[in-house]
Amino acid sequence: MKLGIATVCLSGTLDDKLAAVAAAGFDGVEIFENDLVVSPWSPKGIRDRCADLGLTIDLYQPFRDFEAVPPDVLAANLRRAEHKFDVMAELGADTMLVCSSVSRDAVDDDDLAAEQLHLLADRAAERGIRIAYEALAWGRFVNTYDHSWRIVRRADHPALGLCLDSFHVLSRGSDPAGIRVIPGEKLFFLQLADAPRLRMDVLQWSRHHRLFPGQGAFDLPEFVRLVLGTGYAGPLSLEVFNDVFRQADPNRTAVDALRSLLVLREEVGLGDLPAAPPLDGYAFAEVVSRDAEETVAALGFRRTGDDVWRQGGAALRLRAGDDTRIATVGVVSTSPDDSRRRAESLLARPLPGGAVAAPDGTALAFEAGLPPVVEDGLLTGIDHVSLSAPFDDVDQTALFYRAVLGLRPEPEAEFAAPFGLVRSRSAIDAGGRVRVAHNVAMLRRGDWAPAVPDPQHIAFTTPDALAAADAMRAAGAKLLEIGDNYYDDLDARLAPPRLDDLRASSILYDRDDDGEYLHFYTHILGGRVFFEIVQRIGGYAGYGAVNSPVRMAAHRRLRLGAVPS
Amino acid sequence: MKLGIATVCLSGTLDDKLAAVAAAGFDGVEIFENDLVVSPWSPKGIRDRCADLGLTIDLYQPFRDFEAVPPDVLAANLRRAEHKFDVMAELGADTMLVCSSVSRDAVDDDDLAAEQLHLLADRAAERGIRIAYEALAWGRFVNTYDHSWRIVRRADHPALGLCLDSFHVLSRGSDPAGIRVIPGEKLFFLQLADAPRLRMDVLQWSRHHRLFPGQGAFDLPEFVRLVLGTGYAGPLSLEVFNDVFRQADPNRTAVDALRSLLVLREEVGLGDLPAAPPLDGYAFAEVVSRDAEETVAALGFRRTGDDVWRQGGAALRLRAGDDTRIATVGVVSTSPDDSRRRAESLLARPLPGGAVAAPDGTALAFEAGLPPVVEDGLLTGIDHVSLSAPFDDVDQTALFYRAVLGLRPEPEAEFAAPFGLVRSRSAIDAGGRVRVAHNVAMLRRGDWAPAVPDPQHIAFTTPDALAAADAMRAAGAKLLEIGDNYYDDLDARLAPPRLDDLRASSILYDRDDDGEYLHFYTHILGGRVFFEIVQRIGGYAGYGAVNSPVRMAAHRRLRLGAVPS
Repeated sequence: MKLGIATVCLSGTLDDKLAAVAAAGFDGVEIFENDLVVSPWSPKGIRDRCADLGLTIDLYQPFRDFEAVPPDVLAANLRRAEHKFDVMAELGADTMLVCSSVSRDAVDDDDLAAEQLHLLADRAAERGIRIAYEALAWGRFVNTYDHSWRIVRRADHPALGLCLDSFHVLSRGSDPAGIRVIPGEKLFFLQLADAPRLRMDVLQWSRHHRLFPGQGAFDLPEFVRLVLGTGYAGPLSLEVFNDVFRQADPNRTAVDALRSLLVLREEVGLGDLPAAPPLDGYAFAEVVSRDAEETVAALGFRRTGDDVWRQGGAALRLRAGDDTRIATVGVVSTSPDDSRRRAESLLARPLPGGAVAAPDGTALAFEAGLPPVVEDGLLTGIDHVSLSAPFDDVDQTALFYRAVLGLRPEPEAEFAAPFGLVRSRSAIDAGGRVRVAHNVAMLRRGDWAPAVPDPQHIAFTTPDALAAADAMRAAGAKLLEIGDNYYDDLDARLAPPRLDDLRASSILYDRDDDGEYLHFYTHILGGRVFFEIVQRIGGYAGYGAVNSPVRMAAHRRLRLGAVPS
Repeated sequence: MKLGIATVCLSGTLDDKLAAVAAAGFDGVEIFENDLVVSPWSPKGIRDRCADLGLTIDLYQPFRDFEAVPPDVLAANLRRAEHKFDVMAELGADTMLVCSSVSRDAVDDDDLAAEQLHLLADRAAERGIRIAYEALAWGRFVNTYDHSWRIVRRADHPALGLCLDSFHVLSRGSDPAGIRVIPGEKLFFLQLADAPRLRMDVLQWSRHHRLFPGQGAFDLPEFVRLVLGTGYAGPLSLEVFNDVFRQADPNRTAVDALRSLLVLREEVGLGDLPAAPPLDGYAFAEVVSRDAEETVAALGFRRTGDDVWRQGGAALRLRAGDDTRIATVGVVSTSPDDSRRRAESLLARPLPGGAVAAPDGTALAFEAGLPPVVEDGLLTGIDHVSLSAPFDDVDQTALFYRAVLGLRPEPEAEFAAPFGLVRSRSAIDAGGRVRVAHNVAMLRRGDWAPAVPDPQHIAFTTPDALAAADAMRAAGAKLLEIGDNYYDDLDARLAPPRLDDLRASSILYDRDDDGEYLHFYTHILGGRVFFEIVQRIGGYAGYGAVNSPVRMAAHRRLRLGAVPS
């Protein structure tokens, strides 16, 4: 089964796009007309370039506003089509996408639409070209796949078939089960896009907010299974319009896109990815910084090796360097070799020593066993690791972690931080022992908004947050101080037990239906990394997102120095 | 009439926000609860700070999910309210915003809502506090202003009144005319926000996409006239949630916000802004660059003064400098003094020599007369000036030009450029002689997408684009070459007259219902500024936006150098 992508998914000119698509490892491309129109390459030049790169040209798209029109418009449209057939002949493309009409010239007449599409298919067939008719979700009269199929069936021409696009089908809430009645040989093309579930104008939703499979809310595995069930044997091809991808590095986007298609292929039972082995928890986290040792010692960690610090079941590796960051996340896999093979099959770059590079630059390491437990610590292990990714990359980075580690996504949180909205995504393994979060500003920030909302952190578990905070302060740990206004509001909202103790120890608090969450923070190291200590009571499932703005404002205060009154 | 703003409109911590609000010149603020909760300042400290800055605290907001609940929830809600009354007492705020409930605890019972709000108003009155009840557009049971008014009237308590928010009223499509039946003394507060006309979930629309007055699609002048007609004498206060403003420099945002309120005040017949004098056209444009002289000479301009170059009715000033840009836009005003006074009243910074600074850094100069016409040129004048603004600033920058010059906005265009979507806004004066466009990337770009799509340009008018292009090429002008694919597509789409001539001269073409547009471009100077030559035939009203991606790809090609085949 060939894997393809439409050039419109990527940023740049056609030469940028084709090089990126080939380098990522796709088999073919859909050539988006406007990419060709603005290109200095002739269609023949594009054909040669694709051949050099080992890419097939699977579709030329789109041809718009053709069918169900008065005779004079039909004549003009056929003239226009002949021009495009000329381009396709030179290009060596044999399938043209025709979208259902949005034109004021069109009338609501299925017979006329079928008759005129038959005529178009006749002309196309003379040139060895096939027409794939697609119902746009906002087509004027034809906007559902079953309606487009009725017209194609009525037109009854061997060179006329359907193009199905998951966005157009699923965004309308159409039941895709009806796909089963379409013969596979009449499905000429399959375009795939995911999307977040938005209640908005479907045209705007489609043009700006499509996502690669697995990043949105659509049930694409079910959709693809239905299509494959018809006998469809054409490519799985991505067509994703997204404001971010349109301006992001196409080499990066193409790799993320292909990974997303590989995951989808696995979900429908095809391909040969090694399954994700179960995880046993965190093995360690590695932090690069200039000055972490003092901080982690005050948190109760003890050096147990050259760069290894341990406490309870928590292990840290500290490496000296100016570029402060969480450099490596180590997880315990029941089969490190399989984990590594899966990661590499999902296009992760192997690193020396057996780790792989995640798209956010973090190394992901797979260890065979849990670290030995050091007795008598305040902390018992790592609760979660919170990474940051640029706004442009977070969807793809989160998908990488989920797909490689076999994590299940948790509900997203969005909160108003002092310097802009922040979106928080997280995922958790089946055993509930590995939680990975990604926080990201909603927009790329300008000069004003500082980097403070986007640091990374490691959260350690403790059975007693109050005792831990006291002991750590006594050991000289620089913990984040929280102002009285927070506790007055907390009293008004939740009236938690031991409010005065929480206030005295600057411990934040949250509650859900299943339990409570007590948590506190260190200062930020090197402007980038801080530590959190968390106590989960009962089945509290979240991460205290409601308190994030409080934490962010307090971190900013430290950065600014003294405050009035 | 006092002018105010909610702290939630701005980025930063409360100290950043209050300083920005005061510096811009507002009279008062609404304190957004979360800004207080995360602040290290005590409520008393905030009160003192506002007093020092000369700001009144006009509203404390919001208090949520109060009314129409079972007795135990009511007790908890009253406890919560008493806590907030304590805060308000210390803060010195006398009006609290209560939003209509979205809680699962609430029931659909207006009598119960009125009874419980009466109780809340009683408690508030004891503390000298007033309750302003507001219907959220997504309130569970109360989501229209007339419904909130029925409940307030039924509750019949002197300390209970309404808060009207233009977004909540106008986003629902409610007819605001019913506001006339509300007595002015029961309108406790007025919040103003504009918004683009989006078809999307109203909560998301409100949280992310509100705009300052004049930047969106709402008829705010009509809304404010209706409210003032009731006898309302409280502040005009802005409450705008916007992803961009949340992370932009609050000093800048506050000035833009106040300007927008000053314009709105003028539109309802209040305030004392000097009217915008009629314009006669462009006086000149000033370009800073290292190497413009050779280019403009090849375009047929002649030096007529130290830094002045003229051709027909077009005048350019060229100034040597490394920071290539359009430095000054000079317009001909029938009263330059009034134009200048209006600009300064609208918070434009005066510059030496009588010009003013626009928010995008461009100087705006007002001249008394048109430049003398030089005979026998290829060019006759300036058609439009296209400026660029960062994505964060374009709405405010466009509003500045429109408000200061008295321009009318034209329909927006959005197009997919090779490096991302571009939004183009333009405005035109009553006489059709001054057109100002702003092009902006939809998102702040990362490292990949180069600056090429965001340069500035000056478009000159010619009566004969083909002759002008030939003469300019003969004079050695470096004009942008357009590839064959464009003309093949143009033939298919529009089949324009003289296609071969257009192709031979690399002239782009567009057509609308009223006329035609022929246009071509120079190379980009200093990575930032280029020139366009345009011929308008008939009443063509646009700017050839459909051809922008072609132009952008061609400019990028030049930057990259040689291309294959």
